[in-house]
Amino acid sequence: MGNTLGRMFKVTTWGESHGDAIGVVVDGCPPLLEITEAEIQYDLDRRRPGQSEISTQRKEGDKAEILSGVFDGKTLGTPILIGVWNEDARSKDYEHMRDIFRPSHADFTYQAKYGIRNWKGGGRSSARETIGRVAAGAIAKKFLAQELGVEIIAYVKQVWRLVADIDPETISVADVESNIVRCPDPDMAERMINRIKEARKDGDSLGGVVEAVARNVPSGLGEPVFEKLDADLASALLSIPACKGFEVGSGFGGLIMTGYEHNDSFYSEKGRIRTRTNRSGGIQGGISNGESVIVRAAFKPPATIMKEQETVNSEGRAVTIKGRGRHDPCVLPRAVPIVEGMIALVLVDHVLRQRGHTGSV
Amino acid sequence: MGNTLGRMFKVTTWGESHGDAIGVVVDGCPPLLEITEAEIQYDLDRRRPGQSEISTQRKEGDKAEILSGVFDGKTLGTPILIGVWNEDARSKDYEHMRDIFRPSHADFTYQAKYGIRNWKGGGRSSARETIGRVAAGAIAKKFLAQELGVEIIAYVKQVWRLVADIDPETISVADVESNIVRCPDPDMAERMINRIKEARKDGDSLGGVVEAVARNVPSGLGEPVFEKLDADLASALLSIPACKGFEVGSGFGGLIMTGYEHNDSFYSEKGRIRTRTNRSGGIQGGISNGESVIVRAAFKPPATIMKEQETVNSEGRAVTIKGRGRHDPCVLPRAVPIVEGMIALVLVDHVLRQRGHTGSV
Amino acid sequence: MGNTLGRMFKVTTWGESHGDAIGVVVDGCPPLLEITEAEIQYDLDRRRPGQSEISTQRKEGDKAEILSGVFDGKTLGTPILIGVWNEDARSKDYEHMRDIFRPSHADFTYQAKYGIRNWKGGGRSSARETIGRVAAGAIAKKFLAQELGVEIIAYVKQVWRLVADIDPETISVADVESNIVRCPDPDMAERMINRIKEARKDGDSLGGVVEAVARNVPSGLGEPVFEKLDADLASALLSIPACKGFEVGSGFGGLIMTGYEHNDSFYSEKGRIRTRTNRSGGIQGGISNGESVIVRAAFKPPATIMKEQETVNSEGRAVTIKGRGRHDPCVLPRAVPIVEGMIALVLVDHVLRQRGHTGSV
Amino acid sequence: MGNTLGRMFKVTTWGESHGDAIGVVVDGCPPLLEITEAEIQYDLDRRRPGQSEISTQRKEGDKAEILSGVFDGKTLGTPILIGVWNEDARSKDYEHMRDIFRPSHADFTYQAKYGIRNWKGGGRSSARETIGRVAAGAIAKKFLAQELGVEIIAYVKQVWRLVADIDPETISVADVESNIVRCPDPDMAERMINRIKEARKDGDSLGGVVEAVARNVPSGLGEPVFEKLDADLASALLSIPACKGFEVGSGFGGLIMTGYEHNDSFYSEKGRIRTRTNRSGGIQGGISNGESVIVRAAFKPPATIMKEQETVNSEGRAVTIKGRGRHDPCVLPRAVPIVEGMIALVLVDHVLRQRGHTGSV
Repeated sequence: MGNTLGRMFKVTTWGESHGDAIGVVVDGCPPLLEITEAEIQYDLDRRRPGQSEISTQRKEGDKAEILSGVFDGKTLGTPILIGVWNEDARSKDYEHMRDIFRPSHADFTYQAKYGIRNWKGGGRSSARETIGRVAAGAIAKKFLAQELGVEIIAYVKQVWRLVADIDPETISVADVESNIVRCPDPDMAERMINRIKEARKDGDSLGGVVEAVARNVPSGLGEPVFEKLDADLASALLSIPACKGFEVGSGFGGLIMTGYEHNDSFYSEKGRIRTRTNRSGGIQGGISNGESVIVRAAFKPPATIMKEQETVNSEGRAVTIKGRGRHDPCVLPRAVPIVEGMIALVLVDHVLRQRGHTGSV
Repeated sequence: MGNTLGRMFKVTTWGESHGDAIGVVVDGCPPLLEITEAEIQYDLDRRRPGQSEISTQRKEGDKAEILSGVFDGKTLGTPILIGVWNEDARSKDYEHMRDIFRPSHADFTYQAKYGIRNWKGGGRSSARETIGRVAAGAIAKKFLAQELGVEIIAYVKQVWRLVADIDPETISVADVESNIVRCPDPDMAERMINRIKEARKDGDSLGGVVEAVARNVPSGLGEPVFEKLDADLASALLSIPACKGFEVGSGFGGLIMTGYEHNDSFYSEKGRIRTRTNRSGGIQGGISNGESVIVRAAFKPPATIMKEQETVNSEGRAVTIKGRGRHDPCVLPRAVPIVEGMIALVLVDHVLRQRGHTGSV
Repeated sequence: MGNTLGRMFKVTTWGESHGDAIGVVVDGCPPLLEITEAEIQYDLDRRRPGQSEISTQRKEGDKAEILSGVFDGKTLGTPILIGVWNEDARSKDYEHMRDIFRPSHADFTYQAKYGIRNWKGGGRSSARETIGRVAAGAIAKKFLAQELGVEIIAYVKQVWRLVADIDPETISVADVESNIVRCPDPDMAERMINRIKEARKDGDSLGGVVEAVARNVPSGLGEPVFEKLDADLASALLSIPACKGFEVGSGFGGLIMTGYEHNDSFYSEKGRIRTRTNRSGGIQGGISNGESVIVRAAFKPPATIMKEQETVNSEGRAVTIKGRGRHDPCVLPRAVPIVEGMIALVLVDHVLRQRGHTGSV
Repeated sequence: MGNTLGRMFKVTTWGESHGDAIGVVVDGCPPLLEITEAEIQYDLDRRRPGQSEISTQRKEGDKAEILSGVFDGKTLGTPILIGVWNEDARSKDYEHMRDIFRPSHADFTYQAKYGIRNWKGGGRSSARETIGRVAAGAIAKKFLAQELGVEIIAYVKQVWRLVADIDPETISVADVESNIVRCPDPDMAERMINRIKEARKDGDSLGGVVEAVARNVPSGLGEPVFEKLDADLASALLSIPACKGFEVGSGFGGLIMTGYEHNDSFYSEKGRIRTRTNRSGGIQGGISNGESVIVRAAFKPPATIMKEQETVNSEGRAVTIKGRGRHDPCVLPRAVPIVEGMIALVLVDHVLRQRGHTGSV
């Protein structure tokens, strides 16, 4: 259970890290949307291992194949199956930890939950699972951009203690893609890259923050009680491996303000009601207000490190372990397209609901 | 849509702030659970307005009536309807803002979404909606405590810049209830109370952080991909009015650590596998690991203040507005039972799922 | 669980036959629909006990009260709570069967499922539960009629061996309401009424068939695989107490035809594609084709009879039982508004989905 | 939408008749169930085209490949992806009907719903879609048999006017598989086979009834209001292509009885409460009572025939059409494993729910 996201645009991912294949079924994509494997591949390539010197060196082409739901280049309205064949799975890298619970990984909790786990490469808990999300997210992004002009851009805001200075209202995709750490603050980007290289040399790892902005989001999206737009975004981002925190708008930082300082005043601009500040992050009472939606996700430092650590094996006996597979010293750059995809999936679902209930968006 | 939480223990709230009544339907509560109106009332009283000098003075008894689903003091397994009659609704306090969009409230977004809104007391967007959640949460807490010994305690961790020093592993309900701000750090509690009184005198408002711990949570709860235990908790807490941020375990604060510093080492204690530190907040790979589940929610300063603010009316014309209803200068103390209830609702749902899939919890 | 119907127009019923109240929450009704308690009452009165000499004599006003979700006569888009207070609950009529499992009732299966049951008046298994469905169905019918001109008419097609001759394409509500058995074939109606009176005198009961037609249903409603329009209708009608069979279009009767005889030829009429015959019952491949949707539901003879029957008590000891409460010798006439309501609930849900996915209906 | 069945054991099918592949994702299968591709293949072979002289001659191996969710021969508890590669898709057989709406097929309704359709071999509306259901159903059957001893047997009860005489309580799988029409009444089976051959010679087609029995179903399965066991079975069977009717227990045939004649008396047998007759079909008030669950599904004669028929093309112009692909003159024998699979999917879902809510089944 729990492998499906969405009510109207339903995304179900499947597959394990070292299984035959990994992918996604998208059920509920509107018909007649033009989509190509190349458009999906663009985002998969941004998520792909081995794309730069600061990411894992696992060699996976991660080539998306659409096996159903698209006909003559257009969506049919019926389920879209996208699969990627696993190629460079070195299961022997994992043989030595077959019976060992890696610290801060999901080995122990999977065993506790299911009484069985695919110990090769983390199995289902591997971040390879996000391939399906990114593929589905690419379709969602296409729909949102084409139908509503929505633009979603994520970027690395913080690595370890290094915090970039970025204006979400003006940043572009080109800015983000201008460096391998995907931080559109060039000076800080360089410092981040150096810090990540240093961590790799140490056999250690680093966390950080991905920030994202969604522009031109129509007002009125989100349910007012349990499926608030920000609640759904929180859930979507927390569902990404290693995410430990979420903020919308002012988030935790807004707590030092009083209500008078924090409130976003309304004003009228060319017949459209807007707010002068955007501490709400584009969402009020769980519903989008037409301003840019701004969210942040905290990613912990990856659990896999090349240093020796204490842990236990499946019989509870104390052992030590040291990472041997190919891993990322910092997942942040590769998390950028995942965050964008998850935001797109949440938004498209609420667009379809709102259109259903009110006849227009 | 979006008024239902849960898949197995389904909670649907209904009602507007100044309507006839407000309440909840719980569908999926296991049969044969002993529950009384008094047990539900205990938590409603902790959420109730007018309970102390630092909360709103609206006078509502908030007396829960169980209208279905309980027979001879036990749950039937069929829907439990709990209602509270609204008593002290002073709709005239709101007459002057009938056509005005209050800053950082949901007036504008409801209008944008639905083309209509109940302007009396915020209607459905009022925090009175949480009555139903607290009532349902009380039932969930009872089930969890009785069946599994789970104990859920929330408390005020921060008000404005004032941060308390609290050990989640040892705190008790009595500690929390020992003062009106529900902060179990007596010195900081006093400073918080004074700061809130000051804000009220200023006609201003303050935000803060509620932290919560759930002890004795069995390992194995939570789905590994989209309905991760922490993702569901994030969604549940973000669904509470005014919540703008969520953390589990180390959260944003953990980002200054490296992986080596951050990882929770496993060890064996009397045959049970445990972690030496709990930066994971009791959840690894989206699944509980048997350690205490620890989460935090950021609540912005309430939007309603007694100061004059700039805004627009429904025609987009600039106007000023000043709060007149009875409101909380700081929602944190009353948010405590709401946070506990939401956590209980998430946990009970995952307990029932896990029991269904594996036959045991 | 299982007390909610629909994905976009979600209807949750609650309440037991002899509890305080009984009713429904509707979540997902589009905003700005004008609806009055009187419009809901019209259908509740058609379902009400004591409405004629051939129905049960339980005296219930069944007055619907809308407690939330409607403001100034219009729906808000948020949950609509409708309740009816139980008045004439004579629980003492049931005292003698407190520990007895009535044949072909749900006493035994509720006990087997939950380990507890409200034995008064059948509790949750009573047909009083359908009050909530009829109330919600009245709202759905209003929406469908107003937005799309859909007209749903059900009527009694068969009682016992007595089968009426009715043309679903031309029948009117007035025809149906012209007699107390709600069979728009006057001669057969009289025979049915006499047969029902006879059954009552015998202390026995009769079953039959309700047929229904939905006209002006737009083409394109229904999902092509699991939530086919006819599959959802089947589920909806089978969910009515005492229903044991379902047919769409030619149903079981079509089996004596060959494919050549059975196929509905397409032709073009004023630019609209139509079928010359309607053996499909307006649904092809699970999706409406624009012709009238025609379905039938078989209702078994009511289990409660005034004759002595053999059964067992909760310890498994053989006992005899004889009905004492006030019951219907034939539920068909009162089932008519229930069938209409259920069809409306299914249709409105598919309308909202289709509008969401394609932007128009 | 609408490609997923179940709440706890969630089955999503994907793929089109002449696409690259077709299959299913099963999410929610309990972990540690032993399952092999061979076990799945057994039922796929019973559904496969070309299996006998009375079925379509399309040559498809229909070889199931498990691509995820099974490890060392056991289910992981995570999504199981099963795919079948389409091999013998002769799309050119369909070229001539690219713009033509075949009578009583789903060509027109798909076009009306989506504005696009895969016209090759019926695309998504083809009965090839049921491959995924049969594969998932095989897993469900294994679980039910192993955990609870449930045995599900379907068989052909009627073809055209030819009705077999079969005792559901004593029939065995071997009886069913003893002839190619899967009717365990040998004399009638022979007449059915001859009648089907005659229909094929005529270029015509025949419908009929599949009956099914599920034995050893535990009591207590099914929800009492909207997700009644029989309502879910009705929906599941109506979701099979060409199904036009459903009955449980006495069904439409029971209407000629009075309540006194129809009621199933309870008695006690070795400490177990049973019914002397089984007109309820094993379900009372929507919940299983421990007797055999008995249902019937009516399948219309297949729409594809080799005779010339009148219809229209996509511009509404009158044309004639004559089938050219390879089709079944009677789908009944191949529907048998589909019916068994659908029943298994419904039962397993209710078993997991019931176990979740009550801790035992």
